[in-house]
Amino acid sequence: MTAPAAPPIVSASQAPITVGAVLFDGFELLDMFGPLEMFGMLEGRARILMLAQAPGPVRSHQGPACVADAALAGAPALDVLLVPGGMGTRRELSNAPFLAELVRQAGTARFVASVCTGSILLASAGLLDGRSATSNKRVFRMVASRWPAVHWVAEARWVEDGRFFTSSGVSAGMDMALGLIARLTDWDTSLEVANRAEYEWHQDKGWDPFARLNGLL
Amino acid sequence: MTAPAAPPIVSASQAPITVGAVLFDGFELLDMFGPLEMFGMLEGRARILMLAQAPGPVRSHQGPACVADAALAGAPALDVLLVPGGMGTRRELSNAPFLAELVRQAGTARFVASVCTGSILLASAGLLDGRSATSNKRVFRMVASRWPAVHWVAEARWVEDGRFFTSSGVSAGMDMALGLIARLTDWDTSLEVANRAEYEWHQDKGWDPFARLNGLL
Repeated sequence: MTAPAAPPIVSASQAPITVGAVLFDGFELLDMFGPLEMFGMLEGRARILMLAQAPGPVRSHQGPACVADAALAGAPALDVLLVPGGMGTRRELSNAPFLAELVRQAGTARFVASVCTGSILLASAGLLDGRSATSNKRVFRMVASRWPAVHWVAEARWVEDGRFFTSSGVSAGMDMALGLIARLTDWDTSLEVANRAEYEWHQDKGWDPFARLNGLL
Repeated sequence: MTAPAAPPIVSASQAPITVGAVLFDGFELLDMFGPLEMFGMLEGRARILMLAQAPGPVRSHQGPACVADAALAGAPALDVLLVPGGMGTRRELSNAPFLAELVRQAGTARFVASVCTGSILLASAGLLDGRSATSNKRVFRMVASRWPAVHWVAEARWVEDGRFFTSSGVSAGMDMALGLIARLTDWDTSLEVANRAEYEWHQDKGWDPFARLNGLL
């Protein structure tokens, strides 16, 4: 655990942090539950709402089903809107009512965060136009060519552009979540969360061996 | 990604790998879904069954509920019986019918794997007596004193004792799962899974900075 080069410490707030996590058929398990584990470690300081287009069970790409407790349309204003990726994103790209709900929620959320190919849902909804963002490294070239209005960053564990946080593939969501928790609380809180989860946090958001591994450098 | 010191490569089998994952109220999200992400990356080669004492939704300690598709009692023989930890383990320690089902499933499973305090469920069922095992590092001393018939290893990311795999806290389950996938397939397959998940696998099962951090060394 090394200290960050420039810790973006923001003064802590004891107000509860409401995280709205968006389920859809074919979501990727770790994209969703890696970040939610980190937010969950905040114990009483975070409240997690599982959302989907309609309440009820939603099956992941890997098989396990999880329960949406409420509809996106009925969710309150969120501190964090969390959008995972997964094979199911391909279907949702043409689901206009779903994307419209993402836009509406993103409009009121303090932070909007995507993991892996969750970024293509934000891009498809126009939310990333003119912003810097990243995505899964195996499909990076396809994504960058399909949504040219976004400034796609090839080598990044995660990218922050104002209130928009986007991470690289799957596991990168945990590192991004800790970066976002640092913004919502402070850097030491994120380190404590990582230690409790026995997680080796990649604190440098530029750390990304998978860009080279996938021929992007 | 460095090569392992002594790669325990086992010849690959193309037979499907059936993973039975055990839900109970108050399970820890990442204990469960970190390993299942890794098994899920095997695509057609792994089949994941979500099990619990009874079918239906089961709520995690962090809040999100997931669905048990079948009862433990009705599950087929498993290649991997996966037992997560979490605050909910404390209640299950005195749930005799649940522990009896774990013993029955463990008797026929090729491998039995626990994450974090999932090991105290195995220990409480007598499954770890005389075996080497590890557990969450924040509660390690309590665990070691309560179940003295187990050879608890303080400094380990995960421990393998025959067909029993036990990991340290929360995030360690992902590293253990990749170690177990290497045993079920081969080392290169686990590396490929880790790369697809953009996960920096701690391939050395002795890697454990959290033992020292929690004053165990």
